[in-house]
Amino acid sequence: MTLSEFLMPTKEYTARRGPMDKIVLSSRVRLARNLFQLPFPAKAKKSVHLKILNEIKQAVQTIPDISSEGLIVSMDELSNNDKTVLVERHLISREHAKRGAGSGLAINKEENISLMINEEDHLRMQAIFPGSQVRNAWKKIDSIDTLLGKVLNYAFHPQYGYLTACPTNLGTGIRVSAMLHLPGLVLRDQINQIINAVNKIGLAVRGIYGEGSAALGNLFQASNQMTLGITEESIVSKLEKVINALIENEEEARRHLLAEKGQITLLNHIGRAYGILSNAYSIDSQEALNYLSLIRLGVDLGIFPHGDRSMVEELFLFIQKGHFQLFSKDSLSTPQQRDIARASLLREGILKFGTPRQVKTASSSEKGI
Amino acid sequence: MTLSEFLMPTKEYTARRGPMDKIVLSSRVRLARNLFQLPFPAKAKKSVHLKILNEIKQAVQTIPDISSEGLIVSMDELSNNDKTVLVERHLISREHAKRGAGSGLAINKEENISLMINEEDHLRMQAIFPGSQVRNAWKKIDSIDTLLGKVLNYAFHPQYGYLTACPTNLGTGIRVSAMLHLPGLVLRDQINQIINAVNKIGLAVRGIYGEGSAALGNLFQASNQMTLGITEESIVSKLEKVINALIENEEEARRHLLAEKGQITLLNHIGRAYGILSNAYSIDSQEALNYLSLIRLGVDLGIFPHGDRSMVEELFLFIQKGHFQLFSKDSLSTPQQRDIARASLLREGILKFGTPRQVKTASSSEKGI
Repeated sequence: MTLSEFLMPTKEYTARRGPMDKIVLSSRVRLARNLFQLPFPAKAKKSVHLKILNEIKQAVQTIPDISSEGLIVSMDELSNNDKTVLVERHLISREHAKRGAGSGLAINKEENISLMINEEDHLRMQAIFPGSQVRNAWKKIDSIDTLLGKVLNYAFHPQYGYLTACPTNLGTGIRVSAMLHLPGLVLRDQINQIINAVNKIGLAVRGIYGEGSAALGNLFQASNQMTLGITEESIVSKLEKVINALIENEEEARRHLLAEKGQITLLNHIGRAYGILSNAYSIDSQEALNYLSLIRLGVDLGIFPHGDRSMVEELFLFIQKGHFQLFSKDSLSTPQQRDIARASLLREGILKFGTPRQVKTASSSEKGI
Repeated sequence: MTLSEFLMPTKEYTARRGPMDKIVLSSRVRLARNLFQLPFPAKAKKSVHLKILNEIKQAVQTIPDISSEGLIVSMDELSNNDKTVLVERHLISREHAKRGAGSGLAINKEENISLMINEEDHLRMQAIFPGSQVRNAWKKIDSIDTLLGKVLNYAFHPQYGYLTACPTNLGTGIRVSAMLHLPGLVLRDQINQIINAVNKIGLAVRGIYGEGSAALGNLFQASNQMTLGITEESIVSKLEKVINALIENEEEARRHLLAEKGQITLLNHIGRAYGILSNAYSIDSQEALNYLSLIRLGVDLGIFPHGDRSMVEELFLFIQKGHFQLFSKDSLSTPQQRDIARASLLREGILKFGTPRQVKTASSSEKGI
């Protein structure tokens, strides 16, 4: 299998489903590990990078998922666009995309396991699952960690736990996170209040472009802050509780929007998004993502006569720079050319959903609305 | 004929045409006159207002256009909504709409002559014609002025000319103006440069909400500033020249937008306006006016397969508060209710234009675009 065949997303990829995936797009657990008595990547020479890369690559061969049908590469084997595609699929970090020889990547065919070699730490491994299933993601990556721990000599301190390049990861080296789609809370103007409440109990909720920036596409990431002096089990269960609370709040907000007489607020936002996406002749990826978020909400609530979720997932993925380039026959070298081509793709894609319309709900039919 | 029958706009009204009316919506000439030895309205007692109103009303009977099929009313005979409708049709000023007993109004059936009695001056009379024809408007109102001058004793000073309540109108008492639709110059970002150039030669060009504010619906008013020490003839011909220059500049801007490869800028703006108007569920009159401006441009340039100008004129008129209320069967008491009903009217109306599409132009077919 060639690299571009590997990167080309399949129908199966955009059709993936998970528990509560109308609200929770994905659940991810990441572990940070380093090798005993070797300098962290930022302090290591090139020869040490290569030695570490080689050692971990060999260890990765013991993971059946990856050794049979997966991909193990050095970062210098990837083109810039390959790297952008991998970032857009949440398989590598933006930081790792900047690296070349001496750093590496391993992923399995289902793309739910990925290992970054010589990113900030010698090894960062993640399991990412569709929908709300942080516990399953944790079990998966924990099993990988156990396999690798048999062949790699991890830097582990009896008092501090796993040693990491940045002290914020010290101890368990775990980061548990979920990507949530919360347009209901945004439309009802309740999102900031919710974010503040969650932050107070020691977890972070951020717009996907990080703290302080507006949430792009109504997408938010909830994650743990602490990694030291607390068990993995308690981190996972604390995050599960917060995710469930966010789901309940978002569902409540969506019920309110549906129950409003005429569903005006909902139809006004979704209708305008539909109108712009189906008629614009130039659109950048951020604006497109914001409107697609509302299309996704409309599909979830049954407001579109024909649209389904995998159609939305495809558009979400394909409008992004790297994927867009992957599918373009012509090379679209300027942002202007991409904005025009993206608008063309969206005009065609969005019309298939049909015009938004008011939906009957249990409460609206009871009230005879 | 009842007042509401008089106010109800007819198909003939929205189908009116005039020279160059793709760019110049209307041309208007207004004259300010006062009666000899009577105090200006702001200084006069109620009894004096009534005396003046009565005297001018009788004089107006000598104008055949108005006495046969026109309307002569006291302002207290009009409801608030009637007054709003008259403002939206450019037949009275916002200031005059606030007046009651003691002030009056006379208009002819074609609605191209209107006389406000006891506004800022005892008498303000205007002729307003569709398209670019300030000279015809001037001839028309000059003939009315001549008729009235035979029966009314105007306050006229041999050195200063016609005396007016505000010194900015002293002398000729004339204001010549044209309402221009300049979306091409706005889209090409050339409008401020043009406005500055016109202002330098002693004429004013303003957004229709006045100086400093953004131009609503890409609509601009060009008018004379000086009224004293200059003949009516030279004011009219100076304004004619400026209007012609603005027309040329706007036409040039539209040609550029059409000649651009793929007409992307044009289609992007007009498409988005079409998408929003045909899918919004709540919209205020200002936002609607801004998008309708682009629909109007699209119709002028042949970008819509089915839309015609009188369809645009109707929507322009009907989305405004007073007209909207005139046509509503239900009383729409809150702005929110009006915004929802306006969006519904627009969704239905705009779809009749058909989806915007690229148009062939002489230059584009030459270049094989």
